[in-house]
Amino acid sequence: MTLPELWTHKPQKILAFKAGDRIEDIDTNSSPGFDGDKDDAPELQRDRNERFAELQEMLYANGRRGDHRSVLLVLQGMDTAGKGGIVEHVVGAGNPMGIQYKSFGVPTPEELQHHYLWRIRKALPTGGQVGVFDRSHYEDVLVVRVHNLVAPDVWGARYDEINAFEKELTEAGTSIVKVAMFVSLEEQKQRLSDRLEDPEKHWKYNPGDLDERALWPQYREAYQAMLDKTSTDHAPWYVVPADKKWYSRLAVTELLIETLKSLQLSWPPADFDVKAEKKRLATA
Amino acid sequence: MTLPELWTHKPQKILAFKAGDRIEDIDTNSSPGFDGDKDDAPELQRDRNERFAELQEMLYANGRRGDHRSVLLVLQGMDTAGKGGIVEHVVGAGNPMGIQYKSFGVPTPEELQHHYLWRIRKALPTGGQVGVFDRSHYEDVLVVRVHNLVAPDVWGARYDEINAFEKELTEAGTSIVKVAMFVSLEEQKQRLSDRLEDPEKHWKYNPGDLDERALWPQYREAYQAMLDKTSTDHAPWYVVPADKKWYSRLAVTELLIETLKSLQLSWPPADFDVKAEKKRLATA
Repeated sequence: MTLPELWTHKPQKILAFKAGDRIEDIDTNSSPGFDGDKDDAPELQRDRNERFAELQEMLYANGRRGDHRSVLLVLQGMDTAGKGGIVEHVVGAGNPMGIQYKSFGVPTPEELQHHYLWRIRKALPTGGQVGVFDRSHYEDVLVVRVHNLVAPDVWGARYDEINAFEKELTEAGTSIVKVAMFVSLEEQKQRLSDRLEDPEKHWKYNPGDLDERALWPQYREAYQAMLDKTSTDHAPWYVVPADKKWYSRLAVTELLIETLKSLQLSWPPADFDVKAEKKRLATA
Repeated sequence: MTLPELWTHKPQKILAFKAGDRIEDIDTNSSPGFDGDKDDAPELQRDRNERFAELQEMLYANGRRGDHRSVLLVLQGMDTAGKGGIVEHVVGAGNPMGIQYKSFGVPTPEELQHHYLWRIRKALPTGGQVGVFDRSHYEDVLVVRVHNLVAPDVWGARYDEINAFEKELTEAGTSIVKVAMFVSLEEQKQRLSDRLEDPEKHWKYNPGDLDERALWPQYREAYQAMLDKTSTDHAPWYVVPADKKWYSRLAVTELLIETLKSLQLSWPPADFDVKAEKKRLATA
């Protein structure tokens, strides 16, 4: 990092969900492991965006040469938690060629006729890509559980199923980065209010958001179960305090960078005779 | 524009292909309609990237509210013409949520079993999206024609077919921006040489590129026919001199901005009772 020592702890360590962690204990306004403040953020974010873009290009380059490895960023969080900001300000630093973004909303009639993982599998990143799931298969143990859209034994069976699914993915070469973003109820209220006050943001507001907000105790329970049951060695959850947008963006950027670095990528070597090609080009 | 008067002519006017225009007359090193130089480019590009991003978000916002309109950028050009640079430095300024990038390479066996427009239709942008085709259905009258992959009466029939296809698209609400990028043979040689000299760029080099380079006379003929036959009122071609990367990027940015502006977008109005929601939120 150009601004060293601002991160006193690696986000990958300090934000990883640990058995026994409770959602009610999260200080949503904190900035774990980071010793700087808002003023440090813009420059550091720019710098780290570049690093991410560099590594992402290298992953893409390898993918073009047949490398099957990919990265999948899974974003979960209540409305206004800042998932969209991560997509725009973190993932957006990458090259569109190597980014596969997919948002999962209310399932379509066609999707409902399939297993809930059907639409997920269709959107998985291919080799060399950074996939981004804006909401994901976890909705099937969150909104589905809170609203009783299927029977408890049905959603209850999904945790193991999801773990097995993600195991399969990681074995096939996908590094999964699961990010759960949490804002306080006060901060959420403020952000919803901002959307209502600004006509340019009305399109982001959905009256249903208030209904979900009222269900926060049920959601908290569902999120807790999700973290307890699906934070695995092969696909751990990261719990990101998100009242400070600048912090959550910096943190997720680092999570992506660390994940890409762990792939120990290098530029793919020539799969042709460089000397011979130089000779050919000279007379071409 | 913040730097006004640098564009003396609108790129949309000055770069539009006109009946009778000949490819051999293109000055690939020129910067038509632009009165500035390389030094002016970075600041102007940053500024216009922001404008593009703003309009792109507005298109996306409307799409979220059911607007079927979309934009489709079609990029064609020989190897090293700079299509990838447009994707990274122009389209990359947008929000990944609203960008649908698709590269069309050698057709897969499955694609070959279908009509050549099958894979194209599958990748069309949905409402609110800016789609980007990195190569496109035009390969079916370019590489296919040059390499005699189908009989002349087959590719010969495609020009009308493509015009009809694009007419259908525009009638369905897609604004098509077709960009043909041209570099000189000398500049292409330099860029291929750069890729050979730099091990970090070896992955971008393909020995086949030299074979295609040798076929430039045939490609020029195929490109000429493409421009002559498929530059229509509903989907005109823009001919972009591309020896100066900074120019081609600025120009395509303007083409996209003008296209988005022509949609006369505004932020979608609330589809809910704002006052009532404010009241609800106050006690939520």
